Amino acid sequence: MLAEIITIGDEILIGQIVDTNSAWMAQKLNEEGIRVKQISSVSDDRQHILTALAEAASRADIIFITGGLGPTKDDITKQTLAEYFNVKLVLNDDALNNVLNIFERYNRPLLEVNRKQAEVPENCEIILNNNGTAPGMWFNVDGKIYVSMPGVPFEMKYMMEETVIPKLKATLKLPVIIHKTILTVGEGESFLAEKIADIENELPANIKLAYLPKMGQVRLRLSAYSDGETSLNDKLEEFASRIVERVGHNVVAQEDIPLEKVIQNYMTDKGLTLSVAESCTGGYVSHLITQHEGSSQFFLGGAVTYSNDLKENTLGVKNETLYQFGAVSQETVTEMVEGALRQFKSDYALAITGIAGPGGGTHEKPVGTVWIAVANANKTVVKKFTFGNKRLQNIERSAVAAFFMLITLLK
Amino acid sequence: MLAEIITIGDEILIGQIVDTNSAWMAQKLNEEGIRVKQISSVSDDRQHILTALAEAASRADIIFITGGLGPTKDDITKQTLAEYFNVKLVLNDDALNNVLNIFERYNRPLLEVNRKQAEVPENCEIILNNNGTAPGMWFNVDGKIYVSMPGVPFEMKYMMEETVIPKLKATLKLPVIIHKTILTVGEGESFLAEKIADIENELPANIKLAYLPKMGQVRLRLSAYSDGETSLNDKLEEFASRIVERVGHNVVAQEDIPLEKVIQNYMTDKGLTLSVAESCTGGYVSHLITQHEGSSQFFLGGAVTYSNDLKENTLGVKNETLYQFGAVSQETVTEMVEGALRQFKSDYALAITGIAGPGGGTHEKPVGTVWIAVANANKTVVKKFTFGNKRLQNIERSAVAAFFMLITLLK
Repeated sequence: MLAEIITIGDEILIGQIVDTNSAWMAQKLNEEGIRVKQISSVSDDRQHILTALAEAASRADIIFITGGLGPTKDDITKQTLAEYFNVKLVLNDDALNNVLNIFERYNRPLLEVNRKQAEVPENCEIILNNNGTAPGMWFNVDGKIYVSMPGVPFEMKYMMEETVIPKLKATLKLPVIIHKTILTVGEGESFLAEKIADIENELPANIKLAYLPKMGQVRLRLSAYSDGETSLNDKLEEFASRIVERVGHNVVAQEDIPLEKVIQNYMTDKGLTLSVAESCTGGYVSHLITQHEGSSQFFLGGAVTYSNDLKENTLGVKNETLYQFGAVSQETVTEMVEGALRQFKSDYALAITGIAGPGGGTHEKPVGTVWIAVANANKTVVKKFTFGNKRLQNIERSAVAAFFMLITLLK
Repeated sequence: MLAEIITIGDEILIGQIVDTNSAWMAQKLNEEGIRVKQISSVSDDRQHILTALAEAASRADIIFITGGLGPTKDDITKQTLAEYFNVKLVLNDDALNNVLNIFERYNRPLLEVNRKQAEVPENCEIILNNNGTAPGMWFNVDGKIYVSMPGVPFEMKYMMEETVIPKLKATLKLPVIIHKTILTVGEGESFLAEKIADIENELPANIKLAYLPKMGQVRLRLSAYSDGETSLNDKLEEFASRIVERVGHNVVAQEDIPLEKVIQNYMTDKGLTLSVAESCTGGYVSHLITQHEGSSQFFLGGAVTYSNDLKENTLGVKNETLYQFGAVSQETVTEMVEGALRQFKSDYALAITGIAGPGGGTHEKPVGTVWIAVANANKTVVKKFTFGNKRLQNIERSAVAAFFMLITLLK
């Protein structure tokens, strides 16, 4: 089953926004056995949209369209879809009620342009938008499915998960695909590939292994394509077990979850608490943790000690230590992590201090030098890392390294 | 002058990586007056690449191609370009020297696959790759320019900046496009559109206005297309001024930068410092601030006080206050912001406490209830917000609201 994604809007074409929607959609579709043939970003231009729709329909079975559904003049997706299908726009009552409810909830006056958002091509089923005023649209024309959704990521994601994917499953005869993901940290793709080469060679034709590397982590994803065979799941699990055993301590989870969620699940289970002391990561570690529901059950909080004063006042790092060894040093990070344990009264703590860059590096401590510590009441583990010269990457890699150190200490 | 971008490679189509290259290229090209007509992501498939090249060439004058230049079997861009132009692959001496130098520098044995990287279609000029082994290629065929570059972002960016853009400027007579962005916070797209409808109607044909909404913010972007008219910039500025005046205090910047950067620029300029006390945003506000180079000049740090204990110990929030009014209350947020000012000794502070959800809501304080405070030594401003029921959105919207309150207090 082939799909294409068309994103409509000048924002992507002038580079003002990065198209993250398409990657997210492609991932979800792949999990359901739908392959994305092409992703096209086109402008808010009638003729261009018409051409893109026709080209996509000539290659794929399902065409996803995002963007161009706002209330302003430059948004012309709906009119253009109506023209493409040669139908009229009609007011949809459910969509109108949704718009009315939203304006009532926020106590704002309803403008004519907002009312117009409830108009849709007459040959579509609408997909209710729980998070905004523009309805999604589902078309089934000449054996092809077209799905038009807003470009706002959370509106699109909600529609995909709640309505579109269940509806695709119900409408189409999709193959059954079972995935099993093994999350590894700390070893590169080619090293892992060499380590498990013989296991990979033994995989049957209907089980495939993909290496999905990302910032210090590699996900090993086994996908089994079933034609109703019931033993396939057992076979998948058997291969997964062999890989897990072979890869050893670099395996941190046997499901497709982010690293911080591995920590949350483990610590919540055991009733343990965590606090953090962040310098160069500047709140990123805390943010990763707290973006997940339920994190307050194990995460007490922490300090973002960007200045030396805060390192002293909040964490009790000694002035002499900062003076003698500097803020980016084994001594400082040790006092930071032990200060966090003491001040925040958590069972475990992690601390990070480094030079994120691009400025601030010296010959002895170049940009990318990062010290990380993890500790509990009995043990403190400290490690030095030398990452690259890109600020955001240094922040991300520091977070990944800290989580891996914490998981290792926990287990 | 129209361009198209074709990215080649399965990683994008299975959603493993987000295509950030295209947005970067589009931005650079726009600055030079080259409009990107379409961005297409296609697979490592010969026929698919050939079709994409022909379609792009039928619409645009310049075709940029990234990806598919690696040494492995699945990388077929070069062979396919040779087929497309009906020419042979030949060994290029400059490209070969570059490969040899790189292998010598890293002291690695040269394999046959690496030597092959110096083979290019005979009708191209090569673009030297200072950061890798795959050369870029420049073709000028039948009045169209084709530029093929590696997909590795820093290799591509270097080629674009050092060679491709200068060469385009020297080769083509490029038009001039000027953009002017007005960043607004706190009003919706349709409200703004109504407010400036008459100004928008007066825009001449060569100045366009786009509304770019994003999480509580709307960017108003004016784009002027010049054919050498020198007064166009004045006209653009005049319309921008009228819009800024009309929209009023919701305008926070007259350039295209993130909110936290508006704060950084202003506070660094005035030599002011900031600290934060975050509860429900869990480090996100600190992270937004510290992702930018130079943030340590004004940002001292802060506390992520997820637990009540931390609110008391780190910020000095009174136990009675928490007990009597709860952690999500006007009283608590006031003590948090004043505690941050006192403990962290900053000129300004902001504090956020709320129920991010999806759990933890009550009838009186439903999920999405957020209290935000901003303060300096003389003034504390507190506001209550009622956002929705999505955790990540509540976190993002809280951050945007807090930044807007801080900007308002600063100015």
